[in-house]
Amino acid sequence: MEISKTKAAFYSTLSSKKVRNKHGMFIVEGEKCVTDTIGAFELVNLIATKKWAESHKYIVTEFSALFLEATPEVLKKISSLSTPPEVIAIFRIPEEDTLPDISNKLVLALDGIQDPGNLGTIIRTADWFGVDIILASKDTVDVYNPKTIQSTMGSLRRVKVYYTSLPEVIRKNKGVAIYGTLLDGVDMFKTELSNNGIIVMGNEGNGISNEMRGLIDHPLLIPPYKDNSHGESLNVAIATAITLATFRNC
Amino acid sequence: MEISKTKAAFYSTLSSKKVRNKHGMFIVEGEKCVTDTIGAFELVNLIATKKWAESHKYIVTEFSALFLEATPEVLKKISSLSTPPEVIAIFRIPEEDTLPDISNKLVLALDGIQDPGNLGTIIRTADWFGVDIILASKDTVDVYNPKTIQSTMGSLRRVKVYYTSLPEVIRKNKGVAIYGTLLDGVDMFKTELSNNGIIVMGNEGNGISNEMRGLIDHPLLIPPYKDNSHGESLNVAIATAITLATFRNC
Repeated sequence: MEISKTKAAFYSTLSSKKVRNKHGMFIVEGEKCVTDTIGAFELVNLIATKKWAESHKYIVTEFSALFLEATPEVLKKISSLSTPPEVIAIFRIPEEDTLPDISNKLVLALDGIQDPGNLGTIIRTADWFGVDIILASKDTVDVYNPKTIQSTMGSLRRVKVYYTSLPEVIRKNKGVAIYGTLLDGVDMFKTELSNNGIIVMGNEGNGISNEMRGLIDHPLLIPPYKDNSHGESLNVAIATAITLATFRNC
Repeated sequence: MEISKTKAAFYSTLSSKKVRNKHGMFIVEGEKCVTDTIGAFELVNLIATKKWAESHKYIVTEFSALFLEATPEVLKKISSLSTPPEVIAIFRIPEEDTLPDISNKLVLALDGIQDPGNLGTIIRTADWFGVDIILASKDTVDVYNPKTIQSTMGSLRRVKVYYTSLPEVIRKNKGVAIYGTLLDGVDMFKTELSNNGIIVMGNEGNGISNEMRGLIDHPLLIPPYKDNSHGESLNVAIATAITLATFRNC
């Protein structure tokens, strides 16, 4: 069945967080991302060109009741990518679970990450390093933002993001080590790191908020080579990756 | 002086590599990037709103002969950013230097990186870890792409990128260790790493090219936590960062 104009117009508005939350749906674009996400979330619609559908019969047949055909022009209208994909899927946003026990796990706590690409890359990296719970402050960018979804590369099926009050979670988990990268931290390559605890990562421009800074009992530093007199910094997804690699391997 | 319509229209085309190469100019946007880049490259024009100029007199006075005033609407037309900046600078692309002696240095070799944001983030990360020479295969994205410049956060004043034939450089540097992350590599956290050599990083989709793969004499692996049965991967800028951090610290 061909997609209706109304539906195509509606799905094109899913780039807005307001619309996503109101209707409880999010959009996934491109073959790799779509096939990686199918099975992890409830599929609402699978939208593709005739050509794509013909060369992917095994998927289209399985979800035939939800399949909608679209011309490349219509896919371009729905898509938020600069190079519009041949396939788009609409999924239902799952109900928020309550946070499981994290006292024996290594988890990330994101304190106000703003860039959707950074969030997606952090989720993908967490997946690689076996971190499957991410706590996100309420002002962190939405995980169902299309750009975030795109950069997770399908990792969202294994890594769960919980939007919550970070200080509250920390207060409820007394005794759990709270790590964070701070400029006055100790060299993370020269200190003992645990395989459980909460690692706090801060906002792109302002770093970790004052309130959260006060809760970090293990401040860490990624040492720059030789000196840092020129005052450069690291991207937050990069800093997260180096930190996770170090926790898991050093 | 106010910017002319013709000049504004011309500068808006600097997002194209062809135009950049023909005229030998590139564009830098936003206060942080502009102030970080001034002094490192020859300034052609500094374009800003009246308001910005008034609150940054010390810069505008120094470059008064090159200063052009523009309305926010005109800056928006010139800009490639979704949130147009209050200041834009046009710099001259420097002549390509010949590659210095790299035999006693740790350098990166980028084999076909396509995403401008990844290239910029790699340059910024290299800067943090004291790697100031990056070799880039000729099919690597242009370093003067506005999105690359944006993600370098000013690091291009310290890190030099040389577009060259990677196999040729390697052949000319016999005896230099050639590292690369490959799926059949050895755990990089459990092997001795040198503080000089060439680290090869591959294309986002296809990894390291076959020709380059054959030249790597120290294949390395960033080990995933426990297993990698679900077949995920790491973003190339993330993999580069973990590799550089490990070379410099482990």
